[in-house]
Amino acid sequence: MKVQIITIGDEILIGQIIDTNSAWMAQQLNANGAQVVRIESIGDEYEEIQQTLDRSIANADVVLITGGLGPTKDDITKKALADYFNTEMEFHPESFERIVKIFERWGRTTTEAHRQQCYMPKNAELLFNKMGSAPGMWFEHKNTVIISMPGVPYEMKYIMKYGVIPRLKERFPMQGILHRTIRTVGEGESRIAERIEDIESALPQHIKLAFLPSLGTVRLRLTAKGKTEEELAADIQHYSQQIEERIPELIYGHDSQKLEEAVGQILKARGLNLATAESCTGGHIGHKITSVPGSSAYFIGGFVAYSNNVKVQQLGVQEHTLKQYGAVSEQTVIEMVKGTNKVLGSDIAVAISGVAGPGGGTKEKPVGTVWIAVGNQKKIVTKKLSIGKDRIKNIEYSSVQALNMIRQFAVEQYNLVTENI
Amino acid sequence: MKVQIITIGDEILIGQIIDTNSAWMAQQLNANGAQVVRIESIGDEYEEIQQTLDRSIANADVVLITGGLGPTKDDITKKALADYFNTEMEFHPESFERIVKIFERWGRTTTEAHRQQCYMPKNAELLFNKMGSAPGMWFEHKNTVIISMPGVPYEMKYIMKYGVIPRLKERFPMQGILHRTIRTVGEGESRIAERIEDIESALPQHIKLAFLPSLGTVRLRLTAKGKTEEELAADIQHYSQQIEERIPELIYGHDSQKLEEAVGQILKARGLNLATAESCTGGHIGHKITSVPGSSAYFIGGFVAYSNNVKVQQLGVQEHTLKQYGAVSEQTVIEMVKGTNKVLGSDIAVAISGVAGPGGGTKEKPVGTVWIAVGNQKKIVTKKLSIGKDRIKNIEYSSVQALNMIRQFAVEQYNLVTENI
Repeated sequence: MKVQIITIGDEILIGQIIDTNSAWMAQQLNANGAQVVRIESIGDEYEEIQQTLDRSIANADVVLITGGLGPTKDDITKKALADYFNTEMEFHPESFERIVKIFERWGRTTTEAHRQQCYMPKNAELLFNKMGSAPGMWFEHKNTVIISMPGVPYEMKYIMKYGVIPRLKERFPMQGILHRTIRTVGEGESRIAERIEDIESALPQHIKLAFLPSLGTVRLRLTAKGKTEEELAADIQHYSQQIEERIPELIYGHDSQKLEEAVGQILKARGLNLATAESCTGGHIGHKITSVPGSSAYFIGGFVAYSNNVKVQQLGVQEHTLKQYGAVSEQTVIEMVKGTNKVLGSDIAVAISGVAGPGGGTKEKPVGTVWIAVGNQKKIVTKKLSIGKDRIKNIEYSSVQALNMIRQFAVEQYNLVTENI
Repeated sequence: MKVQIITIGDEILIGQIIDTNSAWMAQQLNANGAQVVRIESIGDEYEEIQQTLDRSIANADVVLITGGLGPTKDDITKKALADYFNTEMEFHPESFERIVKIFERWGRTTTEAHRQQCYMPKNAELLFNKMGSAPGMWFEHKNTVIISMPGVPYEMKYIMKYGVIPRLKERFPMQGILHRTIRTVGEGESRIAERIEDIESALPQHIKLAFLPSLGTVRLRLTAKGKTEEELAADIQHYSQQIEERIPELIYGHDSQKLEEAVGQILKARGLNLATAESCTGGHIGHKITSVPGSSAYFIGGFVAYSNNVKVQQLGVQEHTLKQYGAVSEQTVIEMVKGTNKVLGSDIAVAISGVAGPGGGTKEKPVGTVWIAVGNQKKIVTKKLSIGKDRIKNIEYSSVQALNMIRQFAVEQYNLVTENI
């Protein structure tokens, strides 16, 4: 089942809103074995809508349209659809009665715009919209299904979930498709590609591998299609295992799992708690850790040791360490870890200090120089990064590296609690 | 100048990533008087790329392409472009040397994939990419400019800002157009619209007002076009003044200025320093403040007081306060402010404690309840927020509100240093 998505709205073309509907729809469709072949965003223009519709119907089994409906949109979309299908508009009393009832409940009265909104193309089958006043519309035309929905995300999602997906599944029995994403941290895209080159080039035709890099992490996505679901699952399992055995130390999770979630699970499974002492990242590591629901189970808190005073007075970093080695040094981050564990009684602490830039760089410590330390009472590991000149990138990248060091330290130094029982 | 945007990447079509590049590019282009007529997302497919290119060139003066570049993308995009323009691939030694140098600095070696990446279509003019290894490419074909950029947002943004926009402005002299963005915080979009309704409806035809809401802030963008630059400047000045006089307390800055930058300037101009004590935001306020270059001039640091222990032991919050009122209470954030100012010797401290969710809510304090306090030795102001159920939104929105409270407190309680002289 090939699907084309069309999102209608001038607000997308001027960049006022980001089109998040398409990604959500694509996810849903993909998970159900459909293939999105193209996403197009166009303005609220009669001719544009008709032309795009014409081209889409020629290329796809299903065309999903969002946006261009609602009381202030002048019904251009509905008119363009009705004319394209050579049909007329027809008043739909049930839709209007529903709006009247809702407005009565709110103690308000409907306007002429609401009445106008209830004229629908005659050939449309209406899809109930519990979340708003404009229903979805289902059209059949030349073996293609065309569905028009409002652009408000929660309205679209309701109609998709209860009106569209179940009916599409009946209408187009779908071919199996399966994805598995292996999430890595610690190496760049090209280095990983090199390490698994032979595995990648030996992949059978029906399995594809995609590299999806972010700042500091790379996702490897395996996609299998064209066989039964069982066969695909076996294939995906086989090849993902090959990859995982080649680069085990880089893998922190699968599918939608984030690095900070993986770190949290590792800490929780080992009964450990964590504290932070952040200089150059200013709280970003703490923010990442606490963006995970339930992080209070393993995160104590910590210090934003931005000024040297905080490092000295709160964490007990020695004045002469700062003088001799500087705030951005292995010695300083080691003392920050020791101080944090001592003051907060944490099992593990992470400390970070660096030159985020754009100012503050020197010849020995250029912008992008960052020291990280992770440790407990017995052992402290350190790492020096030489990143780049962009402040925001330096903060983000070094936060990711710090999380990875916590992950590695916890895995290497501690057994699972369950294993100890 | 009509622009078509094409984003390439299977990851968009399966909904794995949301295409945020298009909206950003559309905003930039719009601000420079260009009109985006269509945004298309397609897969990493040779024929798709060529067909879409062909159709786009027929409809637009400029075609902007992002994605499909990078060492593991198999160069489908570059090959499709070269073939479309009937040209060959050529090795670009300077690009390769740059990658080698960067890798040397990281203490790493390049791979064959990096070398392959430096083959470019012969007719491409390269656009420097300071943020990554794949340069942008500028093509001229049948009076249309075609630009190909990597899909990594910060790489694309760098190339757009320094390579594309300035050159497009030269190539397509644009109709006089002028923008001014008034940045507000503290009220929602519809409430602001209500307060300036009469000003908006009295705007002359050649001036448009757009409301651009984000989480907690709203930008009001005035756009004037069709007259001489001088006339436009006078008009923009006139109407922005009207708006600013109506809602002065909501305005924190103009154009590209961020709230955290405005806060920094206000603190700096008053010779004040700031410290933080964050519970529910976990470091996000500190991160925002320190994302501004030079923030060490006014930011000391602070505490991530995630656990109650940190609140009690580091900040001196009293046990009975936590017992009687709870960690999410006005009393607790007041004590956190007092403790922070005392312990760190800061002029102003901000403290925040809330139920970020999704768990932890009660009937009296549902998820989304957040208390914020800002104060110095003499005075402390507090605010209670009732936000929503989404953890990430609660953290972001309450951080913005906290920054705004710092801004208001500093402005109301302190005179400019220069005024004291």
